[in-house]
This record gives sequence, structure tokens and C-alpha cells, in this order.
Amino acid sequence: MPAYSAPVNDIQFILHEVLEIGNMDIPGYDNLESDFTSAILDEAGKLASDVLAPLNIIGDTQGCVLENGFVRAPAGFKEAFEQIRAGGWTAIDLPEEFGGQNLPGLIGIAVNEFFASANQALNMYQGLTHGAASAILAHGTERQKLDYLPAMAECRWTGTMNLTEPHCGTDLSLMRTRAEPSPDGTYKISGQKIFISSGDHDMAENIIHLVLAKIPGGPPGIKGVSLFIVPKFLLGEDGGPGTRNGVSCGKIEEKMGIHGNSTCVMNYEKATGYLLGMEHKGMRAMFTMMNEARLGVGMQGLAQAEAAYQNALQYARERLQGRDVAETKNPQGPADPLIVHPDIRRSLMDQKSFCEGARALLLWGATMIDRSRRCQDENAEDMISLLTPVIKGFITDEGFNMAVQAQQIYGGHGYIEDWGMSQFVRDARIAMIYEGANGIQALDLVARKMPRDGGRHFMAFLEMVADFLRKNADNASLSSDFLEPLKGALNHLRSAGNFFQRRGIKNPNDALAGSYDFMHLFGHVCLGFMWSKMARASLEALASGTGSKQFHETKLATGRYYMKRRLPAAALHMERIGSGSEPVMALAAEQF
Amino acid sequence: MPAYSAPVNDIQFILHEVLEIGNMDIPGYDNLESDFTSAILDEAGKLASDVLAPLNIIGDTQGCVLENGFVRAPAGFKEAFEQIRAGGWTAIDLPEEFGGQNLPGLIGIAVNEFFASANQALNMYQGLTHGAASAILAHGTERQKLDYLPAMAECRWTGTMNLTEPHCGTDLSLMRTRAEPSPDGTYKISGQKIFISSGDHDMAENIIHLVLAKIPGGPPGIKGVSLFIVPKFLLGEDGGPGTRNGVSCGKIEEKMGIHGNSTCVMNYEKATGYLLGMEHKGMRAMFTMMNEARLGVGMQGLAQAEAAYQNALQYARERLQGRDVAETKNPQGPADPLIVHPDIRRSLMDQKSFCEGARALLLWGATMIDRSRRCQDENAEDMISLLTPVIKGFITDEGFNMAVQAQQIYGGHGYIEDWGMSQFVRDARIAMIYEGANGIQALDLVARKMPRDGGRHFMAFLEMVADFLRKNADNASLSSDFLEPLKGALNHLRSAGNFFQRRGIKNPNDALAGSYDFMHLFGHVCLGFMWSKMARASLEALASGTGSKQFHETKLATGRYYMKRRLPAAALHMERIGSGSEPVMALAAEQF
Repeated sequence: MPAYSAPVNDIQFILHEVLEIGNMDIPGYDNLESDFTSAILDEAGKLASDVLAPLNIIGDTQGCVLENGFVRAPAGFKEAFEQIRAGGWTAIDLPEEFGGQNLPGLIGIAVNEFFASANQALNMYQGLTHGAASAILAHGTERQKLDYLPAMAECRWTGTMNLTEPHCGTDLSLMRTRAEPSPDGTYKISGQKIFISSGDHDMAENIIHLVLAKIPGGPPGIKGVSLFIVPKFLLGEDGGPGTRNGVSCGKIEEKMGIHGNSTCVMNYEKATGYLLGMEHKGMRAMFTMMNEARLGVGMQGLAQAEAAYQNALQYARERLQGRDVAETKNPQGPADPLIVHPDIRRSLMDQKSFCEGARALLLWGATMIDRSRRCQDENAEDMISLLTPVIKGFITDEGFNMAVQAQQIYGGHGYIEDWGMSQFVRDARIAMIYEGANGIQALDLVARKMPRDGGRHFMAFLEMVADFLRKNADNASLSSDFLEPLKGALNHLRSAGNFFQRRGIKNPNDALAGSYDFMHLFGHVCLGFMWSKMARASLEALASGTGSKQFHETKLATGRYYMKRRLPAAALHMERIGSGSEPVMALAAEQF
Repeated sequence: MPAYSAPVNDIQFILHEVLEIGNMDIPGYDNLESDFTSAILDEAGKLASDVLAPLNIIGDTQGCVLENGFVRAPAGFKEAFEQIRAGGWTAIDLPEEFGGQNLPGLIGIAVNEFFASANQALNMYQGLTHGAASAILAHGTERQKLDYLPAMAECRWTGTMNLTEPHCGTDLSLMRTRAEPSPDGTYKISGQKIFISSGDHDMAENIIHLVLAKIPGGPPGIKGVSLFIVPKFLLGEDGGPGTRNGVSCGKIEEKMGIHGNSTCVMNYEKATGYLLGMEHKGMRAMFTMMNEARLGVGMQGLAQAEAAYQNALQYARERLQGRDVAETKNPQGPADPLIVHPDIRRSLMDQKSFCEGARALLLWGATMIDRSRRCQDENAEDMISLLTPVIKGFITDEGFNMAVQAQQIYGGHGYIEDWGMSQFVRDARIAMIYEGANGIQALDLVARKMPRDGGRHFMAFLEMVADFLRKNADNASLSSDFLEPLKGALNHLRSAGNFFQRRGIKNPNDALAGSYDFMHLFGHVCLGFMWSKMARASLEALASGTGSKQFHETKLATGRYYMKRRLPAAALHMERIGSGSEPVMALAAEQF
């Protein structure tokens, strides 16, 4: 069975030495001293390793079962969920008045990596609750907040998000679910929603569904969509779960992975719903949570890659197969461990350098969300909006690829379910699809985020990296291994932006045909930037003799690998982008 | 449920217009006229679409079941297998004296693509039988051939290959299965073999296991391994299945995919075995079949990509979501079909240009096997030996990636098992692992095949492509779109070879650290070469007005896409190779 150990040291390094959160001037960060964060992370890591990880493969094997209208989560999930709750982990970044601990979202994201690595399917129950609670927090009336948030903060009640319908996923303008106004100000919701994660289960007293639906007579298309709170049990006079509402799980989908999470078809038959936010402004209410939710999905990409990598590394150390071509490393044994072989190293270094770079990017992104929320800083908000599709799309694509590489190290055993490597791959696959499929992320990036405000935010990103390059130009140890390659990749990113601007106005397809490559090019620049920052921090630590010498030397070698072997993909992406739409659109649809 | 339609036209084009098999001077090819091959391919395609494909998802869902010592294949498999047999498909390229049709392997490979696309798990039962029969044909005594081949040619008896043991997969020198000689010249085989595809089932009267084992007292390691025929039922006096032999299925593995094939743990307890070939020369006997077997696995990579692509294309044409950014294509409908979106096009073109290029490469490879066998042509043998790891490794890696891309087009529906796209991905995954994991293919290529005979065969490949470039240099329509990019990629391949030669002698790790990238670089050059040949054929056809204008124009546009968007990966691979082993091997094993 796979094991998991939380990368606490790596996060500590990123928080305190790379991002230097103590100097960030974000309210709440002043409390995040190194001892404090390490205590939290250690505790979360223990829960992840000891309680959540052992249930991962059980969740995969048993899945969720719908019987007589009741959904049963896999064995042990309920008890583990209780432990997450009991530890106060479900609301660490929610406001204190609703039972949360009001810690920055940065800590929430860090803890979430551990939980998602250990058991993505289980962690989704609280993840969706967090998302629904955030929506109520942002758009609910005071009454609604008081009614729902305390129980949701504790995950005594869990939450869901209901967007997709059978005929519309990405294009929600086609939505058919209706909300008929009742005289008492509530609505009757009728329709079918599909792919509802955590849609029904037996681990909570109530389930609070957030449902997008159309009020008849409203504007057509996406502008006539409203958001509703639809509890599984209507609240009784004591505020607890009362009468059953007209919502039920019609089916649990058979999926490729995340079997431990109940992905439901939800049927709404005149279910009572309460308007959340304003009529017809449902999409806007959804969008305010999107950066956070997409960052969370990006984190899942990293989380699966990290879990898979840890196990592949262990296997590569233990499995004896073949001999080191240069010198036998295990003369007493019948063969050397896999890790002596250069191609196994290549694969492990791909995985390691991705995971550590992606982790830095995600935590950096989380500080921007905190800054935008806690300082009402619009620049931070604009920057994280720009980076969100990159983080979601690039990290989930690469995370999946890395999980596949980790599985490959096991040879035939990687294909056998007992070893758990197949599960990492199958679970990682969903993150490329949900919360906006990665093609949609690329579209969002190129058609919306990049040109916004005349391209100002994209230019700000380029300038931020250029500024880093200038400021560190005289750091000789950093320069050739890190700054030079980063500069090259940044130039490709700039060229791509110019290309889109020059060509995209006349022919939008010239930009859109390169959107996917652009998302990956951007992702590589981000990771190259993160690695340069980490390298600078490690060089400083080595120079001043603080911290573990081995940690920092390993960090530098891993970063150099990324710059030498992974970052050069930037040029390939630019070449593809530069070929424009002609090769992509050359065929008529019927010619395929 | 996914559908499948055999790409008969595309194969006809490759056979007759690109490879021009009629001019190849290979015995047996003179019969392969266009009408004849199209009749065979149509017939095989019908069987694939109508009989095998509908069972694919059933095989995945039901899997194989071991009950009371008996293995049951999924519902409908037995009947479908009968139809494959009844059509004479199981032995089209085996000699007539044993009941085969003695057609060239080229036709066998073409038919196998259809069967593997339609139902890889089912097709493996006959594929393994074919492999085992080929081994007996090559190394068996006359008696053994007469005893086993007629029933195996018909697949009344199926075959298996038993190599892997729990502690050794790639490194067979660690093998423990023993073969004790009996006074009557037979052997008693004892040990455990794992991952035995088609190991046991209820679709054949007998199962002929080919088993690698060590005769006590023989040379240590890989040089003391012998190959044995171990029938499930010993042959009775009438030559039919008699007494049960000491071999049984201990377990069916739970796998990520190919559930319809029984992957067995096989236990041998003093089972009677018959030496096949010479004592201690078992590996050599295995190796003679390896090119063919690995080509077959490469074909599986293409087959899954093709099946996934066909369905993704259909979905992209039918699913209405969003609007064409330039002009609405479906004004009567609520939205435009997915296929209008440039990023969907990019994905479809990636898939299409890979499938068609890979198909040409595989069929070209098959002609080399035929030439080496039927003309005893050593040059052909050497060339296919060189290309085999490229074909196996590159096509299965890319085939998997393309299946993932096809799945992605379905959005959330791609993750739901009902739609069948997950199965294509899960089934495609195995081809990267078995018959030598792809890292081993890369090692075989760089450490064995390339340097063989002083690098002569690699140089011959470079020269063959260079010769093509020279001979077509005055073909203006071919030159800029095809020959120029091919020349660039070929130069990278040559540089990589030089780099390995220069650096690999002093430090073998400098070559091995780049082996995986080299395999992919080589693969891209092969596909670029194939696309250039196909483009030349299509340009000629267009110039002379033969064939379908639309077919050839589509072919050219697809090829141009490959050259513009896919082939440039060659430069990235070369850059990585050129960075040598330092970044890859920088960390000590304990530093990870």
C-alpha cells in the first residue's frame, strides 16, 4: 500500500525563506511565525499520513454506494471525516464569528495539499463545503450566514456546487433548471444537475446545495442565471435539519477515479430554494470564488504528483533490478536498486523538480489571494486572476504527467491496482477536467485575462520577472544557471504576447490556436521564476550557513535540473504559437 | 457506447501509394494487389466494428473471473473469439502446412490494428497465441511443430509467454523458476510467474504456456535460462488434450485496464515441460520474436489512439457548446459544435496527424520484417532491429497521450465510464509498460541498437532519410513544408548520435541520461519521414488527378500540421540530450 509523508520542511522553506511571509505586511501573516506554521503543518501532516492515506485505496476499491435512496461513503470515511472536523481543520481560514480560526488562506492551501495527497476523494467533501461556505459568506444575507455557516464551518453540514446539466457543461447559457418564485419569497427549483461532487452521502447531518437555475422571464442565456441555496433538509424551527426537501440523488456515476467521492446526478423536483445574492447575477456570484476554487484544483494536480512521486522514489530505492552501468552499487545484493539507472533518475528529477516548483507557485498564488482579500489590494487580485488559469491548467496537466511517470517506475506493478499507483493517475486525471476543463483555462487566459485592461496585468507580470532579473543580475552564482534561462523563457512569453496582440485582432483564431501552448509556456516561466527565487534563497542560506546544507544543495541541484531540462520547453511552445491558426484550422470540419 | 470504423482507405493509401508494396520484390507481396488487400481489410474491419467493438466495454466492466480454479472470460468473448477463428484470422501469416494462409506479416499487422482498436483485451488472446506459435515455429522440433502449431494456428489452443516473476521483470537474470530434468528427456517445471496475459480462460481446449526457467547446474544469470513448452493439458495419444498438467492460475490481477484479458499469476508445481530450442539459450529464442512482438505492442498504442480519436471527433461534431469566435456556424442551434473551437481543432489535429503517421511507420516496419524473413535480408533485419525500440516506445507513449487528449474533448463525460473514453486511456496505458517498459526500450536503443556494428545501422538510417531529401530536393511543393523541417529534425538526430559517441565512451551516463529523449527524437524523425513520403504520394496523386482529391488534400494539410506543430519537438529533445548526465545525476540517491 502506498505511504505518504507530508513535505513540511519544503513548505516551511517556501513560506519563510522564499516568500518571506513575515515581511509581507498582510494582516494575519504577522502571527505566522516559523514555529507556529511548523506546528500546524506537522499536525496536519500526521492526520494526513496516519488517518487519511490508509483509507485512500479503500475508497477507490469500495466507492460510494446508492441503496434505497441513501448514499453510503466507503468504510472508514465517516470516522476519518470526524477526525478532520475534531481537529478544527475544516474552517481554519473561515471567520471566527462563524466558528472558523480566521487563518490566512495560505495556510488553508498548504494543509489542503497534504489532505489531497493523502486522500483526494475524502478531502473533496470538505473542499466543496468550503467553496459553498465561501459563496454564502460573500453573497449571503446576514440571516443566511447565521443559518448555514456555523454548521458548514464545522462540516456538520457539507456543501455542493450545482452547475453542470446533461447538455451543458462549459456553456452554461444553455441551462434548463428553473426556479419558480413562490409568494413567500422562496423559489421552487426543478431540473437535473450532473457531476455533483459530494452530492449525497452519510457523513453529514445536512447537505447545502448551491444551485444555478433560471428564473422564468429573466434575461436569456448566461445573464439570466441565478444562484440558490437548496438544503437537503429544510431548516426546522431550532435551526437544525427539519423536513426533507425535494432534492435527491438519482445515480452515482461510475468514474475513472476519485471513487471515494460520490459524484451524483441530482434531481430537483420543486425543491425549495433561497436566492443567494441577486436575481440573474448567479454567474457573478460563482466567479468571485473561482480563483480560490481553481487554485484548489491546481493544488490537487500537485498533490497527486507528490504522492505518486514519494512512492516511486521509495520503490526506486528498494527494487533491485539491473546493475549500475558505471559501478555496481549493491555488490552484496543480486542487483542494484532502480535508482542507480540514469533514466530512472531523469524521471524522478522531472517529478521532484515539478512538485517543488509547483508548490512554490501555488503558495505564492495563495499569498496574492490573501493580499487581495485582506488588504483589498486590486493589483494582487488582478495578478492572481491572470495566473489562475495558468496554475489550474499547467499544474494539473503536468501533475497528471508526473503521476504517469511515477507509475511507470513500477513497471508491471504500476498497472496492478494493489500497488496504488494506478489510483494516483486515475485520481489526478479529473483535475484536468473539472472546475473548467484545461482547454477552457487556456481560452480564459488568452481571450480574457491577458487582454484585460489593455494587457496591463500581463505586462505587470513580465515586468515583475524582469525586475527580479535586473535586481539579481550581479549575483554570479544565480546568473548562469537560473537567470539566463529564465530570461530566455521570459522573452518567449513576451514574444507570444506580442504575437497574439499583433495577429489576434485581425484573426482571433491566431491567438486561440496557440492558447494551450501559451498556458504551458506561461506555466514554465512561472516555475522558472519560482526556481530562481528558491535558488536565491538557498544560495543565501548556504552563504550564511543557516539551515541544512544538504537541504539547500539538493534544492539548488533540483532547480538546475528544471532550468536545464524542463524550462527549454518554452521555446517549443513559442514555435507552435508562432505557426498561428493556419495549420490548426486548415481542414473543413467534414474533412476530418 | 463508443463506435469504431476501420481506416481501410488510409491503409490502402499507405500500402499501395506510399510504400508501393507492389514494387517491393518481397515474395508474397506480388499477390497483394489493391483489390485483394481492400477485400481482406474490409472484411476484417467489419468483424472489428460489428463483433469486437461492441464487446469492448463489456469486457472492461465484467473482467475475467476466477472461480473454483476456472477462469471465465467476459460475456460474449467466447462467441466473438469463435468468429475470429471461423474467419481464419488467427493464422493469416502462418505457414500453410500448419493451417495458416501464409500471407505476409504486413497484412497481419494491418488487420491487428483493427482488432486491437476494437477490443484490445480480446485481441490479446490471439496475439499471445501468435507469439507463442512463432516461437515454436522458429525453435521447435518437427514433432513439436506438428503437435502444437495446427491447433494454435486455429486458436483452438491458445498460447502464453511466461517471463516475469514477482522479484524480477526487466532483470530476468534473477529468475528462480526451476526446470529439473527427468529421465525421459522432459523437465519438471516449478515456480511462480506473474503478469501472464491470457494465462487461463475458457475459450480454448488447451493453453500452451511458453515458460522461461533455469535448469539446475547451468550457467548463472541470464545465460542459464531455457525455454519450455508447458501445456495446460498434456497431449493424449490422439494428440488432443489429455491429463491435466501441474500448472494453474493462482490469481487474476486487478488492473488499471485490459480487464477483458485474464492477467494471471501462474503456479507451476512440477509441471511437465518440453525444452524448446537449446538448453540455456532461452533468451535467444525469446529475442528472435521480439521485433515482431514489440511492433505488435506499438500497434496497440496506435490502435487505442485511433479508436479514441474517432470517438472524440464524433463527439466534437455533435456536442453543441459555445460559439465560433469568428462566425456562428450553427445559427439554428442553441450553440455551435465543439469542432469550431481552435483548441479543439489543435487537439484533433494532434491526434489525427499522430495516428496517420504512426500507421505508416508501423506498416513500413512490417515490410522490413517481411523482407528480413522472406528474403533473408540482413539489412532489413538490422534496420527493423534499430527501429523496434523507437516504434514500441514512441508510439505507445504518444498513443497514450493522444487517448488522454481524446478523453479531454468529452469534458466531464470523458471521466465517466459509460462513455468508454476512460477505457481507451486505461487500456492504452499498458502498452507503455509490457513487452519491455519504455525506459528499457530507450536503453536498448542507445546502449545496444545504436552502437551495434560500429553504429552502421544508425548511420544507414540517417543516410536513407538524407537520400530521400536529396532525391526530392527539386520538388518545390514538398520542399518548404516537408523537406526543410525534416532536414532540421534529422540534423538534431545526427547531433544526438554524435554527442553520444563523443561523450558516451568516457561516461556512459551521458548517453543514458538522454536515452528517453533520444527515443522520442528518433520517433519524431520517423514520423516526419513518413509524412514526407505520404505528402509526396499525395502530391503526385493530385498532379495526376488519380484518387480522391479531398483525401489527398486532407492528407497534405494533416502532414503540414505535423511538420509545423509536432516535429519541432525534435529540437527540445536535442537540447535536453545535450545537457548530458550532470543535471540528471547531480543528486546522491539519499538526497532525494
